[in-house]
Amino acid sequence: MRIAQIAPLWIPVPPYTYGGTELIVSWLTEELVKRGHQVTLFATGDSKTSARLVPIWPKSLWRANLSIPHAAFSLMYEKLFEMQDEFDIIHDHCEFYTAPYSKFIKPPIVSTIHHPLYEEIIQLFKKFPKINYVAVSKNQRKSAPGINFIKTIYHGLPLQNYPFNKNPKDYLLWLSKITPQKGPIEAIEVAKKTGQKLIISGNILKEYRDYFEYRVQPLIDGEQIQFVGAVNFEKKVELFKNAKAFLYPIRRPEPFGLVVIESMATGTPVIAHKEGAMSELIKNNKTGFLVSDQEEMARAVKKVNQISRFACRSLVAKKFTLEKMVNKYEALYRTILKKQKNEK
Amino acid sequence: MRIAQIAPLWIPVPPYTYGGTELIVSWLTEELVKRGHQVTLFATGDSKTSARLVPIWPKSLWRANLSIPHAAFSLMYEKLFEMQDEFDIIHDHCEFYTAPYSKFIKPPIVSTIHHPLYEEIIQLFKKFPKINYVAVSKNQRKSAPGINFIKTIYHGLPLQNYPFNKNPKDYLLWLSKITPQKGPIEAIEVAKKTGQKLIISGNILKEYRDYFEYRVQPLIDGEQIQFVGAVNFEKKVELFKNAKAFLYPIRRPEPFGLVVIESMATGTPVIAHKEGAMSELIKNNKTGFLVSDQEEMARAVKKVNQISRFACRSLVAKKFTLEKMVNKYEALYRTILKKQKNEK
Repeated sequence: MRIAQIAPLWIPVPPYTYGGTELIVSWLTEELVKRGHQVTLFATGDSKTSARLVPIWPKSLWRANLSIPHAAFSLMYEKLFEMQDEFDIIHDHCEFYTAPYSKFIKPPIVSTIHHPLYEEIIQLFKKFPKINYVAVSKNQRKSAPGINFIKTIYHGLPLQNYPFNKNPKDYLLWLSKITPQKGPIEAIEVAKKTGQKLIISGNILKEYRDYFEYRVQPLIDGEQIQFVGAVNFEKKVELFKNAKAFLYPIRRPEPFGLVVIESMATGTPVIAHKEGAMSELIKNNKTGFLVSDQEEMARAVKKVNQISRFACRSLVAKKFTLEKMVNKYEALYRTILKKQKNEK
Repeated sequence: MRIAQIAPLWIPVPPYTYGGTELIVSWLTEELVKRGHQVTLFATGDSKTSARLVPIWPKSLWRANLSIPHAAFSLMYEKLFEMQDEFDIIHDHCEFYTAPYSKFIKPPIVSTIHHPLYEEIIQLFKKFPKINYVAVSKNQRKSAPGINFIKTIYHGLPLQNYPFNKNPKDYLLWLSKITPQKGPIEAIEVAKKTGQKLIISGNILKEYRDYFEYRVQPLIDGEQIQFVGAVNFEKKVELFKNAKAFLYPIRRPEPFGLVVIESMATGTPVIAHKEGAMSELIKNNKTGFLVSDQEEMARAVKKVNQISRFACRSLVAKKFTLEKMVNKYEALYRTILKKQKNEK
């Protein structure tokens, strides 16, 4: 098949450090190329791929620090509009940026929703029943009745890149984008409450620099609470596999949370707020704990040794592999194209 | 003429407090209605107009605090796309949101650019030579060669709503959106350096709450440096007319700066950084001072009594009235429609 993959432009594909969506787009793209498809990746020029790359802007938008990043997305869809006849199917990962163009683009569009669905998005997407929306969890799908979801496909990862470790070191891990919604301060408080060492890893966006400087940094002592900044893939895997537990005190209906399966893949249990899709990813008391607040999270930290690290790994191997994910997308593309053919 | 005015959705039209663009859109809309046109205003439901209102979202986006405000803009252009046959001409004020739709909309589009033109915007707009772009200053127009600017039209205000005051009180004024680019901290430093009283008025956006709390607020003592928050139109005019001088230490190429003419209309001189269109709005040494840095701004404050407040008022009466502005837009609409007719 001639497939266009449309990546968000914020972060290179694959990401240099943080970037769940971009990691998924990269893995999916490379695997589709391996399977013999003609894949074109729309992304920024600092991306690396074995597919054909259509570079929309030289640098990814967080790095380029554009005043009006929206303009770059418009440039991308202009380009897609021009090139549309070169594709059998378009797989989009940019969500709300796409919808309006869908009317004017002929090949069928598959759109994976990577973010929570807010009311304004739901209203918008309802206007575009032609787009084939894919949910990344049952929870996400349920949250937005009326949207043309044709499939739920869990994210999957290349297990061989996440070595299993049964003997972790003695620290807790928090790793994400540094924003209030991802709960770095809650993680710190839990670590202090339980007397545990905590490593914090993450990138700081421009709009959250003051948040980091004034609210998070004063809580970091460099000993019990350590900050290691944003890290690359290899370092990230090291952090995951050596952690005793991964803390995920999120405050939004996370539709998936790639870090959760990354952590479990290396054998590290996850203690997360019971939000969004967490109960689909984590088996409570088996691969981690689902908790409601800081008190509960602190109690869970104390009993994390009860969790079998092997069970964590097994769950990912069973439900969340890259192969599984790509099989499903490939099948979906074929179904859509077949349906389209029959309609003609 | 059947005219659609497309307002940005961030702020009600007219604004409850801060909002230069929304004030212009409101004045323009009301004046066009008065002149007998059939005007339709696309804006949020908390707007007030004598035109027909198409409410896109119940509350304006800053007030509604949407997670994905972009979705509301997409909903608006979907609506415009549906209703397009009802209009002879579309006057848009949303800049980069519009461009991609312009291909699929039949009536001619006039697009006034209210913001600085960054490289990414320039690249985008060059792809849409069908849109009739209007610059709000010569400086703005010059900054973006290659864009289809068909006219430069200065903003204008209803002079009768800005009473002239020749006897100000003894304070300096800073009034804007509280962001680093608008220079509230610089204004405070100038006030402290010159021993003058300063009133700061402005709204605080969510993303700048920490900036305000940690960087600006500690400098406010409630006596020499006073903060009065965001104010409505009447209170704003009071603040302007009683000020000894208005400080505008901006750090971006401001394409116009409505506050500058609002201040001068009441007789209050403006001391501004020599950025963007400032030299087109302010007559140096006559209606205020154009300065390069804090030192110069402090020196200018000391000689502000040399400025004739009457000269400030006269300049606005001569160059920047609402009547003048609407005359020009009306003439432009007619020219475009005539040209379109001739081409058919």
